[in-house]
Amino acid sequence: MSTEIEIRIGLKSGMADPEGANVQKALNLLGFENIDTVKSAKCYRVVIEGDEKYALSEAEKMCQRLLANPVVHDYSIAVAN
Amino acid sequence: MSTEIEIRIGLKSGMADPEGANVQKALNLLGFENIDTVKSAKCYRVVIEGDEKYALSEAEKMCQRLLANPVVHDYSIAVAN
Repeated sequence: MSTEIEIRIGLKSGMADPEGANVQKALNLLGFENIDTVKSAKCYRVVIEGDEKYALSEAEKMCQRLLANPVVHDYSIAVAN
Repeated sequence: MSTEIEIRIGLKSGMADPEGANVQKALNLLGFENIDTVKSAKCYRVVIEGDEKYALSEAEKMCQRLLANPVVHDYSIAVAN
């Protein structure tokens, strides 16, 4: 049995997000005027052998040890649907 | 009124995903042995002025015109919770 986990690594609020800002600028130039903010994030979809509980705890460890930098990143983990 | 939309840009199945492969390799080296696959994706959280229906249709247009390359990308759009 395996479980698919969605890990989302975003910037902490207050951190500069030049990619998001540039996407917003480009969208404005294309005529999308009603945009308040654009924030970028990185997602990983990881298939882990094991049940949901085990997979979620492994994903938490993956974020702490490799994927997220606690100085600048917030992360969220969920079972993918 | 404004609506927060989560746009997820992933690679089409079958496309090479070196970032995902490298993350998987690094996780294996760190001792995470029970990983089947890792797929990377890019996410944007866009706050659009308007109701849900309008925001979803705008996000669809943003993907078609700027964010996704239909040759290599699949995208999904959802109201962020």
